[in-house]
Amino acid sequence: MPTALVISAHAADFVWRCGGAIALHAAKGYDVTVVCLSFGERGESAKLWKEPGMTLERVKAARRAEAEKAAEKLGVRDLVCFDLGDYPLRLTDEDKDRLVDVIRAVQPAFMMSHSQYDPYNTDHMYATEVALECRMIAQAWGHKPGEKVLGAPQLYLFEPHQTEQMGWKPDVFLDITSVWDRKRAAIECMEGQEHLWEFYTRVAQNRANHFMRNSGGQSGGRPAKYAEGFQSVFPRTVDEL
Amino acid sequence: MPTALVISAHAADFVWRCGGAIALHAAKGYDVTVVCLSFGERGESAKLWKEPGMTLERVKAARRAEAEKAAEKLGVRDLVCFDLGDYPLRLTDEDKDRLVDVIRAVQPAFMMSHSQYDPYNTDHMYATEVALECRMIAQAWGHKPGEKVLGAPQLYLFEPHQTEQMGWKPDVFLDITSVWDRKRAAIECMEGQEHLWEFYTRVAQNRANHFMRNSGGQSGGRPAKYAEGFQSVFPRTVDEL
Amino acid sequence: MPTALVISAHAADFVWRCGGAIALHAAKGYDVTVVCLSFGERGESAKLWKEPGMTLERVKAARRAEAEKAAEKLGVRDLVCFDLGDYPLRLTDEDKDRLVDVIRAVQPAFMMSHSQYDPYNTDHMYATEVALECRMIAQAWGHKPGEKVLGAPQLYLFEPHQTEQMGWKPDVFLDITSVWDRKRAAIECMEGQEHLWEFYTRVAQNRANHFMRNSGGQSGGRPAKYAEGFQSVFPRTVDEL
Amino acid sequence: MPTALVISAHAADFVWRCGGAIALHAAKGYDVTVVCLSFGERGESAKLWKEPGMTLERVKAARRAEAEKAAEKLGVRDLVCFDLGDYPLRLTDEDKDRLVDVIRAVQPAFMMSHSQYDPYNTDHMYATEVALECRMIAQAWGHKPGEKVLGAPQLYLFEPHQTEQMGWKPDVFLDITSVWDRKRAAIECMEGQEHLWEFYTRVAQNRANHFMRNSGGQSGGRPAKYAEGFQSVFPRTVDEL
Amino acid sequence: MPTALVISAHAADFVWRCGGAIALHAAKGYDVTVVCLSFGERGESAKLWKEPGMTLERVKAARRAEAEKAAEKLGVRDLVCFDLGDYPLRLTDEDKDRLVDVIRAVQPAFMMSHSQYDPYNTDHMYATEVALECRMIAQAWGHKPGEKVLGAPQLYLFEPHQTEQMGWKPDVFLDITSVWDRKRAAIECMEGQEHLWEFYTRVAQNRANHFMRNSGGQSGGRPAKYAEGFQSVFPRTVDEL
Amino acid sequence: MPTALVISAHAADFVWRCGGAIALHAAKGYDVTVVCLSFGERGESAKLWKEPGMTLERVKAARRAEAEKAAEKLGVRDLVCFDLGDYPLRLTDEDKDRLVDVIRAVQPAFMMSHSQYDPYNTDHMYATEVALECRMIAQAWGHKPGEKVLGAPQLYLFEPHQTEQMGWKPDVFLDITSVWDRKRAAIECMEGQEHLWEFYTRVAQNRANHFMRNSGGQSGGRPAKYAEGFQSVFPRTVDEL
Repeated sequence: MPTALVISAHAADFVWRCGGAIALHAAKGYDVTVVCLSFGERGESAKLWKEPGMTLERVKAARRAEAEKAAEKLGVRDLVCFDLGDYPLRLTDEDKDRLVDVIRAVQPAFMMSHSQYDPYNTDHMYATEVALECRMIAQAWGHKPGEKVLGAPQLYLFEPHQTEQMGWKPDVFLDITSVWDRKRAAIECMEGQEHLWEFYTRVAQNRANHFMRNSGGQSGGRPAKYAEGFQSVFPRTVDEL
Repeated sequence: MPTALVISAHAADFVWRCGGAIALHAAKGYDVTVVCLSFGERGESAKLWKEPGMTLERVKAARRAEAEKAAEKLGVRDLVCFDLGDYPLRLTDEDKDRLVDVIRAVQPAFMMSHSQYDPYNTDHMYATEVALECRMIAQAWGHKPGEKVLGAPQLYLFEPHQTEQMGWKPDVFLDITSVWDRKRAAIECMEGQEHLWEFYTRVAQNRANHFMRNSGGQSGGRPAKYAEGFQSVFPRTVDEL
Repeated sequence: MPTALVISAHAADFVWRCGGAIALHAAKGYDVTVVCLSFGERGESAKLWKEPGMTLERVKAARRAEAEKAAEKLGVRDLVCFDLGDYPLRLTDEDKDRLVDVIRAVQPAFMMSHSQYDPYNTDHMYATEVALECRMIAQAWGHKPGEKVLGAPQLYLFEPHQTEQMGWKPDVFLDITSVWDRKRAAIECMEGQEHLWEFYTRVAQNRANHFMRNSGGQSGGRPAKYAEGFQSVFPRTVDEL
Repeated sequence: MPTALVISAHAADFVWRCGGAIALHAAKGYDVTVVCLSFGERGESAKLWKEPGMTLERVKAARRAEAEKAAEKLGVRDLVCFDLGDYPLRLTDEDKDRLVDVIRAVQPAFMMSHSQYDPYNTDHMYATEVALECRMIAQAWGHKPGEKVLGAPQLYLFEPHQTEQMGWKPDVFLDITSVWDRKRAAIECMEGQEHLWEFYTRVAQNRANHFMRNSGGQSGGRPAKYAEGFQSVFPRTVDEL
Repeated sequence: MPTALVISAHAADFVWRCGGAIALHAAKGYDVTVVCLSFGERGESAKLWKEPGMTLERVKAARRAEAEKAAEKLGVRDLVCFDLGDYPLRLTDEDKDRLVDVIRAVQPAFMMSHSQYDPYNTDHMYATEVALECRMIAQAWGHKPGEKVLGAPQLYLFEPHQTEQMGWKPDVFLDITSVWDRKRAAIECMEGQEHLWEFYTRVAQNRANHFMRNSGGQSGGRPAKYAEGFQSVFPRTVDEL
Repeated sequence: MPTALVISAHAADFVWRCGGAIALHAAKGYDVTVVCLSFGERGESAKLWKEPGMTLERVKAARRAEAEKAAEKLGVRDLVCFDLGDYPLRLTDEDKDRLVDVIRAVQPAFMMSHSQYDPYNTDHMYATEVALECRMIAQAWGHKPGEKVLGAPQLYLFEPHQTEQMGWKPDVFLDITSVWDRKRAAIECMEGQEHLWEFYTRVAQNRANHFMRNSGGQSGGRPAKYAEGFQSVFPRTVDEL
């Protein structure tokens, strides 16, 4: 059974940015694990905070509930909430060890996280920095000797909010048309960020145009109605081009 | 009366990529000149070529008619069709002199052209190369001495089709909400490329989200429903930041 | 009353690098706040340390006095000395909270800090890293709920000492001719770094040449005798190009 | 029957840089066409020129013979020698049309050419510039209407001589162990450049180490004894990551 | 007596990556100090960990012994093992102070460390980050006043394992032919990584080809059989080009 | 007798940008040849063109005279004026052959030309493109067989007018204090561009500060009053770091 692991800085990121990839691979039989390092409770829950009498715990509970519902829609097998706080996100050595444990337990065929630069949201780039560091630790034979070490899974960087400002360049487009309904359903679980539902629907539609361009040139290639783009950190190893 | 000059490799580029900027500045009283170096007759007219018995002249006539209609919708004051051929586009020294003549006649407050890199469409990057070269010639006191030389107008690079692949990074977002109807009307003149109507409508909507993000942070700033993004080649000179 | 906020790693940085911008905007009615994260007491006070019997406290007092005098010359409304130590500069979470408090209190129309890369002086790039992180925290509705959150101010990166080595590229030049006397007076407050007075005077003169080039081409545009350059981190949002 | 097309600036480039990919895909049943734009007769045949009484025609004949022998070893189906001259290489519009004809006739599943930057050898980067331009023309419905237009094949950039100086970054490693004997045999056809035989053998061995690293981490993944690296110009379009 | 300082993240790095530079400069009379921040005991000792009953202390002892033997072969004057742990490597402020002490004691004519980016091995890029920070502290007159401050030594970045993935670009090639035997002898001290002996021998041979190319063009310049490449962080200052 | 070759797009470029390097190496006994591809007669002679009745021939004669006087001040051994026209500069294959002839005749120890990017002045980047192409041709054994082929001289890129906009990064600073009087005298030969005399004097003074920083850290290293900076295209090959 192949597996995949998504490392998301805040609770909603995995939905907007790679919900289609999750649903598609789940449908293909992958066990997909999602780690939410925080709930985005302080920095990405403006709507909730505008309600009178709101507390941090209530925001976290609300965001957790949304994330769980969305994960279910996408077919996520395991949603792991680290609850480390956001704005700023910080991982202690123990938190990183916990993440290494998850990586080793999952033994992912591929991993996913954020873009490597994001001047708007330093939590995002920090999450990727941590993902690379923990990937390395998980490969170390001397870390918890006896455990199965990690191989060399690809790390895909999913789409940030303003791609060009982050220096993010997709090198692979994934057709998610067959699971679009699931991604849209997961998106609609994010009640606090309704202004982004249509935004990310349009992103998926325009990425489908790019999918067609790159599969068939300017007059369009293989039809696709919804797609997602990813940037690979590592080279691929293949037996045929 | 301020002026602006758009240099478009193919007939339709100015519509998709900066139709809003044209309409907005026209509405503000700018005289906007658009130079179409070619009609995109060979490379961007697939639909027409699929019709039986099509000829190059008929394609060019059709694309010219579309461009003229679109220019009228946008309030373009002068649409100049150089008719130089496309795929590939080539300018002789005489063609460049003609473009320098236009630049000097217009004396634009700002110029617009394509991204500086485009591996999909070498006509696009060639157009910008030519725009920079002709801007330089237009500044030369010894080129047709006696004519008024050009100052130092900004060259804005408008949005290419797959921004990240072109290394294009917008540094300014323009609110085009007030003229969106005109841009959409101009877009609909492009009958041969109907598959792009919704694509570029979504681009404008998502750029409006970016406009709001950059005017007001993650919870949204000044409302805007449609926007365009541009990358500046040269630094600005200001009296207040 | 518009406001601006400068985040300076060491006491003297705000003088050399954006003293003109401060004086100009102060003259226009902006309330300008300057945060000095350290006094540059260990790393940028060589001349003082060469005096016999010098102590850290005496160096700090001397640098503070210079900074205060310079701030007064420039019309700074509030000079906030965090006194966090330099070479290396470090901020705890509490220090960052304090900086967030200042950012929210000021609600700046724009912010300023160092270049994003500086292999000579890691304090500089660290200060900008912190500026971006604290800007993000200040935007979070869940950080000290009830306080007014920050919008999306531009972060301008001011001129480092060896621009090309830092990968710093100015995209805006500001004419500071009208306040040059104030900047020069502030520069002369930096008694321990007299070797830099003429250096930064020449920088301002040459930036004025660049101002003219970019406002009027190779034969020179609008006259300016002194200027400063800045690099913007974020895109602008405008209603006219 | 799938097809592939290699565009080589000089006669020997296809051997050193992608001989393994050619042999491997030929073995898998691909029809591989190689276009040699020149023989490298002036710039890459030093050994021959040191012989007394050498003439351009004799050098070209010798290099052609070597290329033909090497192509045969690799299983190239069609070796097309354009004989355009080297140092510098130049293509007229007619030459480009001829290359477009080849591209359309082959309808390649993928194309290969040189790195996009090479300050040592401007023929190399020029060949890639031409490859992109001709790929675009081959996609145009209005170029020789009625012919089958090109889709959107990947353009792989093969390994230049000093990778880091060319800004070349491989994103895919291909295991060529099974066809190494053929590549070595082809290499040994290049009698005039014997000093490079061992060089490119070592390159292939070290790329195999990279193959293992990227398929299995630091302690090594799937065994491979010889490999080649390629950089992709365009994004991939996939149904599974 | 000139001096040099190498800062190596793990025990073996200084051997593979700059063993030739060490041996060559030692032979020229330089006092070369090598700091190993860790032994690579957890992450770069897979072979040892596969032995039954292995412990961290035994791995460290084995790697220390290897490093000492290798250092002796190379003519290192002082091998300083900080023993800070690896995967991940972390330096406290005290550890950095200790490194600053070494830097000041050595007063190196040049320093060496890792590439500035390494997504495979975050310890490597962290070591260079620390090297730059400590170089800066060592230059501060106010750090341990009275001690001799550091001048401005070059920081050379030695060759990482997959150069193109790290964005590493050598700007200087050093002929190490005369000391190759020593480097090979040092390499053979690394018993746990025998799979890399031939890899780095081939690297040295191919860098010698690059040495010849850059000293004499495509037909080869000054003969060299083994070489190493380095990337400089800072500009050079010279009296003749 | 060592030699050097400067390739200057316009008549005055060699004075502003590398006059110090020329004078210094001439004083050391180098034979320095300067090729001016054009006189800058159309684009860099605004002052002359403002005189009534000016003609192209008179402008060229005036600029030639200035260049000759400046070359004499600097100790240039051979000033070769190609007179190819400027704004835009163009070289035919015959012009390039002529340049190759000069390169081979000079057999330079190093070459100099412009930055590789210049959006303000496309002649500048074109000159460097040509320099690289002709350097390659000069290395070809089959180009005019029997002539002495070129080795692998460094190509230094001299300082453009707005360094950061050109992406130019100096990696070597040359102390020109001892020949400053000659450079200033040569500068003063450029009567038509008096506004640049002080500009480039300030550049030289500030580069001297950079020289000191890089030879001795923040408190200043070896004294230098005037310096020039250069960017190297190719790696160096050395026997000692």
